[in-house]
Amino acid sequence: MLIKYELIKKDRTSRARLGLITTPHGQFATPVFMAVGTQGTVKTLIKEELEAIGAEIILGNTYHLWNQPGPDIIKQAGGLHRFMNWDRSLLTDSGGFQVFSLANIRDITEEGVSFKHHKNGDRLFLSPEKSIEIQNALGADIIMAFDECPPYPSSYEYMQQSVERTLRWAKRSQDAHQNKTTQGLFGIVQGGEYLDLRKHCAESLVAMDFDGYSIGGLSVGEPKTIQNHVLAFTTPLLPENKPRYLMGVGSPGAILDAVERGIDMFDCVLPTRIARHGSAMTTHGRIIIKNKQYENDFSPLDHHCDCYTCRYYSKAYLRHLFKAEEMLAYRLLSIHNINFLLRLTENIRQAIKEDRFLEYKQQVYRDYGLHFSDKDF
Amino acid sequence: MLIKYELIKKDRTSRARLGLITTPHGQFATPVFMAVGTQGTVKTLIKEELEAIGAEIILGNTYHLWNQPGPDIIKQAGGLHRFMNWDRSLLTDSGGFQVFSLANIRDITEEGVSFKHHKNGDRLFLSPEKSIEIQNALGADIIMAFDECPPYPSSYEYMQQSVERTLRWAKRSQDAHQNKTTQGLFGIVQGGEYLDLRKHCAESLVAMDFDGYSIGGLSVGEPKTIQNHVLAFTTPLLPENKPRYLMGVGSPGAILDAVERGIDMFDCVLPTRIARHGSAMTTHGRIIIKNKQYENDFSPLDHHCDCYTCRYYSKAYLRHLFKAEEMLAYRLLSIHNINFLLRLTENIRQAIKEDRFLEYKQQVYRDYGLHFSDKDF
Repeated sequence: MLIKYELIKKDRTSRARLGLITTPHGQFATPVFMAVGTQGTVKTLIKEELEAIGAEIILGNTYHLWNQPGPDIIKQAGGLHRFMNWDRSLLTDSGGFQVFSLANIRDITEEGVSFKHHKNGDRLFLSPEKSIEIQNALGADIIMAFDECPPYPSSYEYMQQSVERTLRWAKRSQDAHQNKTTQGLFGIVQGGEYLDLRKHCAESLVAMDFDGYSIGGLSVGEPKTIQNHVLAFTTPLLPENKPRYLMGVGSPGAILDAVERGIDMFDCVLPTRIARHGSAMTTHGRIIIKNKQYENDFSPLDHHCDCYTCRYYSKAYLRHLFKAEEMLAYRLLSIHNINFLLRLTENIRQAIKEDRFLEYKQQVYRDYGLHFSDKDF
Repeated sequence: MLIKYELIKKDRTSRARLGLITTPHGQFATPVFMAVGTQGTVKTLIKEELEAIGAEIILGNTYHLWNQPGPDIIKQAGGLHRFMNWDRSLLTDSGGFQVFSLANIRDITEEGVSFKHHKNGDRLFLSPEKSIEIQNALGADIIMAFDECPPYPSSYEYMQQSVERTLRWAKRSQDAHQNKTTQGLFGIVQGGEYLDLRKHCAESLVAMDFDGYSIGGLSVGEPKTIQNHVLAFTTPLLPENKPRYLMGVGSPGAILDAVERGIDMFDCVLPTRIARHGSAMTTHGRIIIKNKQYENDFSPLDHHCDCYTCRYYSKAYLRHLFKAEEMLAYRLLSIHNINFLLRLTENIRQAIKEDRFLEYKQQVYRDYGLHFSDKDF
């Protein structure tokens, strides 16, 4: 296997697991959080900053890079790694999620999806073959099969048809994949909240032998209880010796819930997006930096944090930058928020090592101000 | 003198001079270019980046910091140095230039200027005492007297009255200055294109014994020939043992012209402003990064440049970032452009050392594509 997953240790108090993933560009421990570099950059940041906070793998978005600058340019540059100056591990999604969430006037057929681009209105067509062709040009270490991601709720009948199509598309993705010696391909389990469909999808994909598996179609508006239920049901259906990836999840509570149920990999725009809106994740919950109370608060965002932002800048300065609409505000808050999630996953790994994952989860919930009954946080 | 200027060497081919300025926060060679940190940040950049490109002194703008976050907050933080995490030399302007160029409905009296803030419309009043009070709270190493900066052209009669008022305001600035042991105060020579007024203003200010002198009221729309003429006339009127500062000038050609006439210090938003508009200064002139020709140009902005941006990123990537409206574009272009001007002044200093300033100037003009007859570049 090109993407090697080594199971290091299971937590005794939950299904949480400590692992080690090896890709052509490096090795990293799991559970891991991956920052998102949508358009070939983790917004506002450079490689050295991401490395300093311990980012070992980041994401690029096929949908966005397909449009701008286009896969040909990136291929000519020697691939996305070289184009964006990132030499650690890299993952690209299939573009499917953006097609289903951003684009307009979709038309889904057996062949693929035709749609209008959400910004320029261009008429586009994405299929398993096209998605893999683009991802092959981008050259990330891990690429994703092209799947359909139906909204929540969807009827059982629709979901059943959709899962069958997603399975056929998974096979076509596999067949289209040209760089089997340099890029690993993950399959995506769909099926909504219908456990029998999840089971059928998972088992069929496992039989196709992917490098890893993602659980898709979650975080699309369903209640948290359903998300956790589907995760608890689905992860045991996946092979122990392959990575398990929950796409689009990045809140501290949801990461903890999913790790508890056996997930290894996460990605989300949350830390950079809320940074641009002036929010910071801290040990004691989220703070909104523009609030008047921070006007002359010369302490760091989080006393427990060792990130660059917390070492050198006060809340008062960050508030000033945000109010003055200075881009440095978004940059410094992004560093802090990504660091927060990377420290969270680091602490999770340590807790698994010491068989106290559930205890650690409870502590984070309490400190962060979460409740076990929260629907969303 | 708190701000010490040491004349190291004069160029034999021009009035260019090599010097060394010492402030409470460090020492730097002149001619020097100072990047502008308008709102307490050189837009998008942090200290380490500015240090890496050799920035020894930067600017803060009194007008902007007065409004947001306000001098009280910055004073409570321990001054602007500590607030913004900058421990090298720092200079603040008086706020006068912004009042005269940005604000609306000005009313100039002997006491000061009342005006409406250009953003929030607040009714404000700035006087020599108020400007110095704010600058004392900010605590920069070098602060500026509050002057009137009349537009070009202004009548001789108006300019004559204005110069007299600027001289009275200079005296009041001096009297209001509370931190004489920690902050040096510069006087500003006004007088427009009228050489006798320049002479009168310069001699009167010199008699008042400031820590340094700025030549103000230039770069306000007058032809380049007038600017150079006024500079050539005015600098010899200033003491040899004090720094000479030309405010608001940052294009390569204008810097060279002014150094030739004896100027030591420059500041300008040009390198960061054109970065935000996607322009880069290079050895062979300015380039506009969004141009189609750079779409698959994988070479750096400037082969002669050693900045971070040129070391790691191609024109194709920068073009992509700019087209995708990624903030990293502005950041990487700002690093490059500030570095360009700091290398220019470094080369100027070397040329003075070797008595070949004029030769160096000619070379830059030729390489950059400037002509000696250019009105503005």
